[in-house]
Amino acid sequence: MSFDAIDVIITKRDGRELSDAQIDWVVDAYTRGEVADEQMSALAMAILLNGMNRREIARWTAAMVASGTRMDWSALDGPTTDKHSTGGVGDKITLPLAPLVAACGAYVPQLSGRGLGHTGGTLDKLESIPGWRASLSADEMLAVLREAGAVVCAAGEGLAPADRKLYALRDVTGTVESIPLIASSIMSKKIAEGTGALVLDVKVGSGAFMKDVASAQELATTMVELGEDAGVRTVALLTAMDRPLGRAVGNALEVAEAVEVLAGGGPEDVVELTVRLAREMLAAAGVDGRDPADALKDGSAMDVWRRMIRAQGGDPDAPLPRAAETMDVTAPADGVLARLDAYAVGVAAWRLGAGRARKEDPVAHAAGVTLHAKPGDHVRKGQPLLTLHTDEPARFDRALAALEGAYEIGTAPDPGLLPLVIERVTA
Amino acid sequence: MSFDAIDVIITKRDGRELSDAQIDWVVDAYTRGEVADEQMSALAMAILLNGMNRREIARWTAAMVASGTRMDWSALDGPTTDKHSTGGVGDKITLPLAPLVAACGAYVPQLSGRGLGHTGGTLDKLESIPGWRASLSADEMLAVLREAGAVVCAAGEGLAPADRKLYALRDVTGTVESIPLIASSIMSKKIAEGTGALVLDVKVGSGAFMKDVASAQELATTMVELGEDAGVRTVALLTAMDRPLGRAVGNALEVAEAVEVLAGGGPEDVVELTVRLAREMLAAAGVDGRDPADALKDGSAMDVWRRMIRAQGGDPDAPLPRAAETMDVTAPADGVLARLDAYAVGVAAWRLGAGRARKEDPVAHAAGVTLHAKPGDHVRKGQPLLTLHTDEPARFDRALAALEGAYEIGTAPDPGLLPLVIERVTA
Repeated sequence: MSFDAIDVIITKRDGRELSDAQIDWVVDAYTRGEVADEQMSALAMAILLNGMNRREIARWTAAMVASGTRMDWSALDGPTTDKHSTGGVGDKITLPLAPLVAACGAYVPQLSGRGLGHTGGTLDKLESIPGWRASLSADEMLAVLREAGAVVCAAGEGLAPADRKLYALRDVTGTVESIPLIASSIMSKKIAEGTGALVLDVKVGSGAFMKDVASAQELATTMVELGEDAGVRTVALLTAMDRPLGRAVGNALEVAEAVEVLAGGGPEDVVELTVRLAREMLAAAGVDGRDPADALKDGSAMDVWRRMIRAQGGDPDAPLPRAAETMDVTAPADGVLARLDAYAVGVAAWRLGAGRARKEDPVAHAAGVTLHAKPGDHVRKGQPLLTLHTDEPARFDRALAALEGAYEIGTAPDPGLLPLVIERVTA
Repeated sequence: MSFDAIDVIITKRDGRELSDAQIDWVVDAYTRGEVADEQMSALAMAILLNGMNRREIARWTAAMVASGTRMDWSALDGPTTDKHSTGGVGDKITLPLAPLVAACGAYVPQLSGRGLGHTGGTLDKLESIPGWRASLSADEMLAVLREAGAVVCAAGEGLAPADRKLYALRDVTGTVESIPLIASSIMSKKIAEGTGALVLDVKVGSGAFMKDVASAQELATTMVELGEDAGVRTVALLTAMDRPLGRAVGNALEVAEAVEVLAGGGPEDVVELTVRLAREMLAAAGVDGRDPADALKDGSAMDVWRRMIRAQGGDPDAPLPRAAETMDVTAPADGVLARLDAYAVGVAAWRLGAGRARKEDPVAHAAGVTLHAKPGDHVRKGQPLLTLHTDEPARFDRALAALEGAYEIGTAPDPGLLPLVIERVTA
């Protein structure tokens, strides 16, 4: 069936529902270049402003999955499960989580992404490990899964090419902030990835894409529905991103923190969230085996980590890059750290070199920010609150400017701080 | 001042007002190609759905005027005045009107357009006159104005190039139907044309762009405000386009009817509207001289017409092209023609070859429809109601299909028929 792009645009512009056939046609024709970028961006704006209902979003997602290949892990001798985070500051959870879940008996085939702006990307973090490589073929992914139980790598060109093209377009046309388009973008990649179960970590707060609980709930519900409609057992947690997660923000700094967690230590919030997400992933996959907390303590998760890193060419024992220069930011008074803004810390790390402004830019692996206190901690005047890490000292001033007003010393933690896990969303 | 296209798009997407500086920048940057088509189409959709206020529309229009040259007729020894119609079926009014107004003492420098779809274009009509040429330089326009008092020609490349580019984009992105964008498109060209006064003929009904009086009022008010804000004395009439205007629809057929009017005859509605618009144009230009009705009767308007056509290479005495084939559509019963739908007749003429589906297509100058009865006329069963004209008899069937249900024989004219002049809109 063939349609006219203008009719499809006008249907949504005028607030009507797109038919299944219209959606299938427009996504396919856009992928093939028959629908032009300027037509798709007008449609994306109409979708952003007029919305899509559950059927439309599900069909849109299915059409994006169908634009490429859907991976298949039925050759493995056990269930697959994965986690996706909507992104935040200091969110290195995938690094300890994937090996931990594998150590507890489920396969984790994770296709991951790179950072943009103030949020980091898992592939950028892992690339700070000497020799580690992000690009694997489907056969190589299967080999790593068989060897280690978990794999984290970049999505290949053949996976949801419609989403790849549409995402790049939305990025330059002011049409990113649409829950139907965000949800279908994330879920088309996760469904095409072929995982049997999926846990979504929807971040909420200044450092996250979703600034408030209500919009995070809407996104989580939409994605859980999409997953279930596509036959993927899907659960979502809404978690706090009003302050950074853990004590390290920046690629190599976060790898080091992840390794601490795998060694049985690490910051309390990172450990708590890693274990909670591991339990959700295992439950969603129907694996009822050992408790993830034990697998962190007895070193079995660390064993998987080392096998996984090695299988992708990385040296788990190689020293991580360290920044040429550091600068401490000290507490201006005695008291309790009332708040420490995630977005500001993310921007500071970005300006120190940890992030990129454009997709083509490289990242500085050693750059970032380490935290010496978390909201609620007592601090003494003059003690280091944060340490800034960079290879280019000229960047310190811009990072300090980003941190202006980012923290407050008071007598108690800010009562508005979000609980680490805010809510659980299921179908 | 420089902006980011995404920020401008998001401003309007989120329902906020665009600043003057944002508008100036985005229109200029789009004309230069710095803002991409896919960004402008997303912005156009956001404008369509979220609107622009009077200040924004005026600034947007001024920015489109400033993208090219504004013509200047101060070298002439009298005032200039022009008319613009939003387009309809059988609307050949410009042809008798421009020479008539010139005969009454004002200069008429009219830049006109071509038809698209079911509506005709003045340039297409005039091109059915052997030798007549639509493209003139500014110097040639001035020479024709000095010689004849009126000129009707195509807009040059340098006139509102931003509008030219944006109009082509809106056409393929479902963003045509926005009153701020329609009004600024029309008015940017008319302001750049340099006329001192302007009368807008805003058509209402099935054959017009505006189907109802309320949206026509909104468009008229917006355009009148834009004209006055730009120093052009502007008045609008809302006029009927629920039935065709006059008795001829199609390029050469309409030229012949226009010549009848200039000879002191012609259909009552065409004469009435021509005289009414001429009075408005003269009043807006501040010319208080002879009455246009007299200038039709005494042949002075015809004299101007002949000078104007000759000055542009045309032969006013050459026979007009005639269609190779004709077919009559007869009345199915005795009675009164209750209604005759303008849109259906326009589509029939288009299908007979009078119109074009794409800008690049040629038109058949002789093709079209002539009316033997107008709503309210008594008809006898079997008498011709319409005659179809075409060079390609294979087109008759598709034209007949377009006319299915387009007319009705009853006992009285449809009480819903619009008065010829519905309303006058001033600032």
